Amino acid sequence: MRALVYHGPGRISWDTVPDPVIEDPRDAVVRVETATVCGTDLHILNGDLAEVTAGTVLGHEAVGEVVETGDDVERLHPGNRVVVSSVSACGRCGPCRDRMFGQCRGGGGWMLGHLVHGTQAEYVRVPFADHSTHRLPFSPSPDEAVLLAEVLPTAYEVGVRNGEVGPGDTVVVVGAGPVGLATVALARLCSPRRIVAVDLSVARLEAAVDMGADAAEVPGRMIAELYEGPGADVVVEASGEPEGFVLCTRAVRAGGHIAVIGTPGRSATLHLESLWRKNVTISTGQVDTSSAPWLMGLLRFGRLQVSPLITHSFELDRAVEAYEVFAKGTESGALKVALRQG
Amino acid sequence: MRALVYHGPGRISWDTVPDPVIEDPRDAVVRVETATVCGTDLHILNGDLAEVTAGTVLGHEAVGEVVETGDDVERLHPGNRVVVSSVSACGRCGPCRDRMFGQCRGGGGWMLGHLVHGTQAEYVRVPFADHSTHRLPFSPSPDEAVLLAEVLPTAYEVGVRNGEVGPGDTVVVVGAGPVGLATVALARLCSPRRIVAVDLSVARLEAAVDMGADAAEVPGRMIAELYEGPGADVVVEASGEPEGFVLCTRAVRAGGHIAVIGTPGRSATLHLESLWRKNVTISTGQVDTSSAPWLMGLLRFGRLQVSPLITHSFELDRAVEAYEVFAKGTESGALKVALRQG
Repeated sequence: MRALVYHGPGRISWDTVPDPVIEDPRDAVVRVETATVCGTDLHILNGDLAEVTAGTVLGHEAVGEVVETGDDVERLHPGNRVVVSSVSACGRCGPCRDRMFGQCRGGGGWMLGHLVHGTQAEYVRVPFADHSTHRLPFSPSPDEAVLLAEVLPTAYEVGVRNGEVGPGDTVVVVGAGPVGLATVALARLCSPRRIVAVDLSVARLEAAVDMGADAAEVPGRMIAELYEGPGADVVVEASGEPEGFVLCTRAVRAGGHIAVIGTPGRSATLHLESLWRKNVTISTGQVDTSSAPWLMGLLRFGRLQVSPLITHSFELDRAVEAYEVFAKGTESGALKVALRQG
Repeated sequence: MRALVYHGPGRISWDTVPDPVIEDPRDAVVRVETATVCGTDLHILNGDLAEVTAGTVLGHEAVGEVVETGDDVERLHPGNRVVVSSVSACGRCGPCRDRMFGQCRGGGGWMLGHLVHGTQAEYVRVPFADHSTHRLPFSPSPDEAVLLAEVLPTAYEVGVRNGEVGPGDTVVVVGAGPVGLATVALARLCSPRRIVAVDLSVARLEAAVDMGADAAEVPGRMIAELYEGPGADVVVEASGEPEGFVLCTRAVRAGGHIAVIGTPGRSATLHLESLWRKNVTISTGQVDTSSAPWLMGLLRFGRLQVSPLITHSFELDRAVEAYEVFAKGTESGALKVALRQG
C-alpha cells in the first residue's frame, strides 16, 4: 500500500510499504476514508518525539471502513464504518477501567503514528479494535466524524471538563488553532458569560469568533481587559507554547482553573512566587477519548457545528503537500486538513 | 508596648512601639498569650516580600485575650479568649462570601505582620475582628490552639483538601517542616494506604514518623520506591523549594494530584513537555482558614494530636532568639517555636 512515512527529523515521504495485517486476535484492519494531520505530527517531524523511529507511518486520526478483524474482535465486522480513535485501549488494565484510556498500561495509549504505524495511509492496523474505534451509527460528514478521533475529545476532556467550565464563567482560550477553536465551540455549550480567544494570527481570531467566541484578541489587549476585572474563571492553554502557559497564569482569577491542552516541546516557567497566593488549579492531560460517544451524540443531533474546522482537503496521496499547508496554518488560515481516499 | 519589629532585610529587633488602638469600629485589640514564628516570617526577614515595610511588627499567628472591641464588633467581648487567624476577612466581598477569605477584596486577606502590625507583640489590633478570630469555647493547650491560626488550616485546606486525599491513597509529603508534618497528621484522618514523608533532615524525618508517616526518606530513596509502582495518588509540596516542586511532578502518578503549600521566593520549572501526557492536577493556595472551626472540633474531641509540632518555647521578649532557633530548624530539629507572655 501507499503511506506517509517518517524518515527522521525533517523528512517525510509518500512511500510504498507492506500492507498491514492482523498481528493479534484483537486487531482490525481499516481502510482509511479520511485522515488528518495533527500539530503533534509536526512535533514528530521536528524531531521533538525521540521515541518515534524512522520508518513509522504517521497519523492517529481517521474515519474508515473495517476490512478485516482478528478472531477476538467482537463488536466490529467488515463493512462497518468507524472512527479510529487516536487512543488505543486494552480495556482491561487499571487505568482503562478508570476510563483513563490514554494512560493504558496494557499495550495501548497513544500508539498509532507514534509507536506503531498510523492512519495517514491506505490501510491501518488498529490494536484492540473493539476498544479503539467508535462505530458510526449514522452518516455525519466525514469532516465532522474525523474530529471525533482526537480534536473534539481533547478539547472537551482536557480543556472544558478539566477546566470545569460552567454557566456564567469567563473563559479565555489561549491559542486558536483547531483544538483551541473546538474548545471555544464546546465551552459555548456550558453557557459561559464570555469566551475570549487569544492568538497572534488575525485569521485564527476571525475563526474564533465564527466558532462562538465573544471576543478575540492578540495577547496584550486580552490581558489589559482582564486586568481591569478579577481575571478569568477558566483559562485554557491551547497554544502549545510555554509563553502561552505563562499568559494563562496571569489571566486566571484567584481560585480559577487553568487547563493545559497544548503539548509544548519544552518546559514552562511556573511562577510559584506569586501563584502560591492565587489558589489556582492547573491540569494537564492526554486525551482519553472517553467522551467520543457523547460527542458523537452532539453531532448527530445537531448540537455542535464543527465542520468549519476543516479548511482544506487533499487526496490522500498528496499528504506531503497537506503537511506543508497545515504547518503554515497561522499564515494561511489553514486549520485541520483532510486527507481523503475516494 | 514591646514588639518584634522588622527594620529591613536581615534586621529585626525587640522594640518599644505605640500601643495598638481601635482604628475602625470593626477592630478588636487582643493581648497576646502565645504567638509563633512562621517560615513566611523568615522570607520577610530575607527581604523576599518587598511589600513589607520597615517598621512593621511581624507575626500572624496568636492566641490571646480580647481587651477592647470597636463599636461594630458583635461576637467578641473583652475577656474572650480567641485564636487570632492569620487571615483577616471583611466577610462581605465576593471572595469572602465564597469562603475565600485569603483572597478578601474588602481590606482583609493576609494583613497581620504583613501590611499591618502583627502578633509578635504584647498586643495586636485585629481588623474585622468578628471574622478574623475564632472563640475558644474550651481550653486546649495554647500550643495546640495557636496552630489553628494558620498551620493546621493551611495543611488541611491547601494540602489535604486541595490534593483530594482519600481512603486508600498513597500520599507523599515533600518537606517535613511544621506544615508538612501537620499535613501528615491530617492526611492520616483520611485513611490513606500509605504516607511517605520526604526531607533532607533526619530529625524531621523522625518527626514525620512520630506524626503518622508510614515511611520517611531522603528524596533519592523516595523516588526509587515510587518509580517501581505507578507513583503517588497525591503529592503535597511543603518544602517551599522549587526543586521540591519538580520532585512532586516526578513522584505523582498519571491522573494524580499535586497540592502546593510551599511559598517559594522564586519560580519553578514546569516540565510540560512530559507532564502533558500525565493528566496531573496542580493546585496552589493561600490559606482561607475556613476550616479552623472544624479543626478546633478535632482538637476538642481528641481526634488530632499536634502539640509535638511545637518543640521550643520562649518568653515573648526573647523573640529574636526564637527566630534564630527557628531558622536553624533543619539542623536543630526545631519545628514551631512558641512565644509566650505570662
